Amino acid sequence: MGDIAGNAAKVLGAAKKANTQGAQVVVFPEMVITGYPIEDLALRPAFSKAAKEAVKTLASNLEKNGCGDLLVVVGYLDREEKPLNAVALLHGGKIVARYVKRHLPNYGVFDEFRNFAPGNGTLIVRYLGVDIAVAICEDIWREEGPMAELVARKPGILLVPNGSPFERSKDDLRLKLLQQRCEQVHTPIVYVNMVGGQDDLVFDGDSIVIAKDGIVISRAQQFEEELMISDLTVEMRSATPDLIISDVIKSQDDEVRNEISARLSDEEEVWRALELGLRDYIVKNRLKSVVLGLSGGIDSSLVATIAVDALGRENVFGVLMPSKYSSEHSLVDAEELANNLGISTRKIPIEPAVESFKNLTELKGLAEENIQARVRGALLMGISNQEGHLVLATGNKSELAVGYSTLYGDAVGGFAPIKDLFKVDVWKLAKWRNKIAQLKGEKPPIPENSINKEPSAELRPSQRDSDSLPDYETLDQILEIYVAEGGDAQSIIKRGFSRELVERVITLVDKAEYKRRQYPPGTKVSRIAFGKDRRLPMTSHWRERT
Amino acid sequence: MGDIAGNAAKVLGAAKKANTQGAQVVVFPEMVITGYPIEDLALRPAFSKAAKEAVKTLASNLEKNGCGDLLVVVGYLDREEKPLNAVALLHGGKIVARYVKRHLPNYGVFDEFRNFAPGNGTLIVRYLGVDIAVAICEDIWREEGPMAELVARKPGILLVPNGSPFERSKDDLRLKLLQQRCEQVHTPIVYVNMVGGQDDLVFDGDSIVIAKDGIVISRAQQFEEELMISDLTVEMRSATPDLIISDVIKSQDDEVRNEISARLSDEEEVWRALELGLRDYIVKNRLKSVVLGLSGGIDSSLVATIAVDALGRENVFGVLMPSKYSSEHSLVDAEELANNLGISTRKIPIEPAVESFKNLTELKGLAEENIQARVRGALLMGISNQEGHLVLATGNKSELAVGYSTLYGDAVGGFAPIKDLFKVDVWKLAKWRNKIAQLKGEKPPIPENSINKEPSAELRPSQRDSDSLPDYETLDQILEIYVAEGGDAQSIIKRGFSRELVERVITLVDKAEYKRRQYPPGTKVSRIAFGKDRRLPMTSHWRERT
Repeated sequence: MGDIAGNAAKVLGAAKKANTQGAQVVVFPEMVITGYPIEDLALRPAFSKAAKEAVKTLASNLEKNGCGDLLVVVGYLDREEKPLNAVALLHGGKIVARYVKRHLPNYGVFDEFRNFAPGNGTLIVRYLGVDIAVAICEDIWREEGPMAELVARKPGILLVPNGSPFERSKDDLRLKLLQQRCEQVHTPIVYVNMVGGQDDLVFDGDSIVIAKDGIVISRAQQFEEELMISDLTVEMRSATPDLIISDVIKSQDDEVRNEISARLSDEEEVWRALELGLRDYIVKNRLKSVVLGLSGGIDSSLVATIAVDALGRENVFGVLMPSKYSSEHSLVDAEELANNLGISTRKIPIEPAVESFKNLTELKGLAEENIQARVRGALLMGISNQEGHLVLATGNKSELAVGYSTLYGDAVGGFAPIKDLFKVDVWKLAKWRNKIAQLKGEKPPIPENSINKEPSAELRPSQRDSDSLPDYETLDQILEIYVAEGGDAQSIIKRGFSRELVERVITLVDKAEYKRRQYPPGTKVSRIAFGKDRRLPMTSHWRERT
Repeated sequence: MGDIAGNAAKVLGAAKKANTQGAQVVVFPEMVITGYPIEDLALRPAFSKAAKEAVKTLASNLEKNGCGDLLVVVGYLDREEKPLNAVALLHGGKIVARYVKRHLPNYGVFDEFRNFAPGNGTLIVRYLGVDIAVAICEDIWREEGPMAELVARKPGILLVPNGSPFERSKDDLRLKLLQQRCEQVHTPIVYVNMVGGQDDLVFDGDSIVIAKDGIVISRAQQFEEELMISDLTVEMRSATPDLIISDVIKSQDDEVRNEISARLSDEEEVWRALELGLRDYIVKNRLKSVVLGLSGGIDSSLVATIAVDALGRENVFGVLMPSKYSSEHSLVDAEELANNLGISTRKIPIEPAVESFKNLTELKGLAEENIQARVRGALLMGISNQEGHLVLATGNKSELAVGYSTLYGDAVGGFAPIKDLFKVDVWKLAKWRNKIAQLKGEKPPIPENSINKEPSAELRPSQRDSDSLPDYETLDQILEIYVAEGGDAQSIIKRGFSRELVERVITLVDKAEYKRRQYPPGTKVSRIAFGKDRRLPMTSHWRERT
């Protein structure tokens, strides 16, 4: 994000590599020059100026590096009266054409109608005798507008740069969409998606090339930046182009083996998303290492394991912070996890600090529970300040939904890797990760006991999550309907949950909005994550009648 | 927000009162039935269903309460395929007409294009022989669309319900806009705006009635909910209406004295905004009291004074939390403030808790500075949990801009009343508030020493804000251009600031985005406040070259 020179250099490097491999057209993702989503950076004139200049310089550098014959398609930020989400077509050292995105998504995490003016018209350029059309991301998700107009213009191929964030199972949706569009436009489609983490989004790549009959020719891996070379058959001179760059038909004789990457399982896909989301937040913010509290519970165990996979065990620091309410197994399980992962840990019993607070002011009941969490939070932040590791918050989506967390306590952190995972998915992923280890002949990292024991915050004697919450299997089903599907109370009750329980749960969710506002960012993996996806007032008396 | 039954009851009550005072038409603000802005509540079908039903019931209740002859204009959430920002015209126990907002603001704090579908067409109804047109808020801020169409239709009067949040000096803008529209449409305009706080917005009312020649006939106070009765001359049967409710011309003989409220000074306007914003956050969240740390500095002194004005001194609790680096005058100044305000305080020296942390883990330099702030934060939260007061954060906009605050330390709180005030404005308001007290013959609440002493966080020996920041007069001018005007580095340098200083300041601002994300909400008073007004990535390598 914002590293315009770095991004342009990356594009140049990939284009050179593509050139040596005999490519004729090289397509990069939406806004590859600026990063995506740029949000209100779009409104800063200096930013669009820098982006436009970088694209001009890139065109000239491509020429200087022997890539002037290529057609290179790069997404960038342009600006006329208003900012534009644009792609430039580079050839012969120059920007030869430009296309501006027309359908600007303004739902979910997207604010494009806020940040850009829509383009108009379609673009078809003839290059080596092929009539190449361009559309950007959302343009192909709707039938009206650019898609309908392109169908009428009969291009020979459709290139689509994308910035399409990962959501569970979205890869299946994408392929279906492309096949549907193929049926309409009757051309091959080259769908190129960004890879990498950006704050609470992760882009999973999954670039796809399909032939005009809808058959997949090439498909890139998810979560891996790569240069995918694809060889495909296209119709020549099918349209009336807006611009002829070259009308010389030049078939390609080099043999290219089109590759179709195997699909990932649901668990692996989510794991890779969480891993990349965390890694890129750390790396792109020029940090190196993380610290987190290890309670012996499943949430912190899972986060530690993701962190080790993402950053390497030498960059993950565990802190055991037992209180007088911590059970013996908490320490044993946390130590076992740390041993399995090979990460360094330290043990800091928090009682002296808790006592010192209790000597300073009266803290009973919930106040006493919370002070323990806040002492832990302050210790982790202290270690972070002293040693430079980013603190990871270990809360999951179920807790976040119902407000089962302590502000400035377990909620402290620069990043919250599993904030978009319901508790049932936390268990599922833990089991999956252990199984993968077993299959590889490694020791499963997460202690069985952490997976199997009853969840507890251990902030008072014999506390159990189930004292104040329904069991997670039930809770998560209700949350799935209420939060992720946006369903009403009635629709939840219809699916067999009691009126009383539904009212209790949605009241908890509605009332916890203020806590979520101050929670750290974390990777979105579901259709509706807390954050930009779900914008609700904190002050609200709206309670659904059931 | 969301209290549909309560809002409908309030509308009924006001309509009855208007009826007894001889009113013929009663206009309420935009979305008065639901609250505003409802954000993604718009997307919940149960919510729009409840709002629509409430409007129907209201129409019938108006009739039952002898107000069936009135024309009552209420804003609400409607829904067809998509949610609609609508107003209903109620008469004779029924909804007789509906208008749907056409221009949906999707900039600044607004996400209306996300949440609503735009309406189409205009609405003119004839009532008592007058052709009444309706437009909603943003509709009159643009010349094209509904305004242009209404000009052509020649209504006799234009009614405009609004949800227009307060910004400094916006009242002047509003009047200018109305006068400009008057010149175009040649009718009186009745501009009705909401009053009250909603999360980080405060609506200031300032409802205005102007005659067809642009002269102000009536103008309501800012920040006060009221029923304003206005008597004005209108042209009869000027248009071809969409609906005739009644064609009987009925002039009004009762004598109504139109009132024009005096304008507030800049300082008073901002003060009243901060007061109402805080009070409504507390009251509407069904809380009663607040607690805050008193450092003897100007920020906490100002916040305490606002809180006393907003909530009464019996609802404000001060905590003095000296460390070993606190100067004597810090305690003296804090105690003087508390005495002046008549609020209860307690003194909790934090050293024992700080020491207990230092015994648990190494904390030096910045880590030691921060642990002091975090001990204070945890103490305030502990008192909050124990006694039920909401914690107020006392940070100002200058600090927030450059990241001069400790996450989970001085940044803890449920609300941050002065987060949108630059430091220079903090001083200005403090002096103004003292002067007002003097004029009233009261003791000025804020100690002179708190206003005059050099700002210091007192987290290490002899620390001064100026050790790490430029003086606030300079800093705030740069921030005003960079943050509030969205100006580039170049434009700041052109106004006479050194390249080096500008680079330093804007780098601090850009890098502190992650801290602002976790900061509590607070009342917006400027054109661009941190929060929904300014949406930027946390992870970003964009640095303006100067």
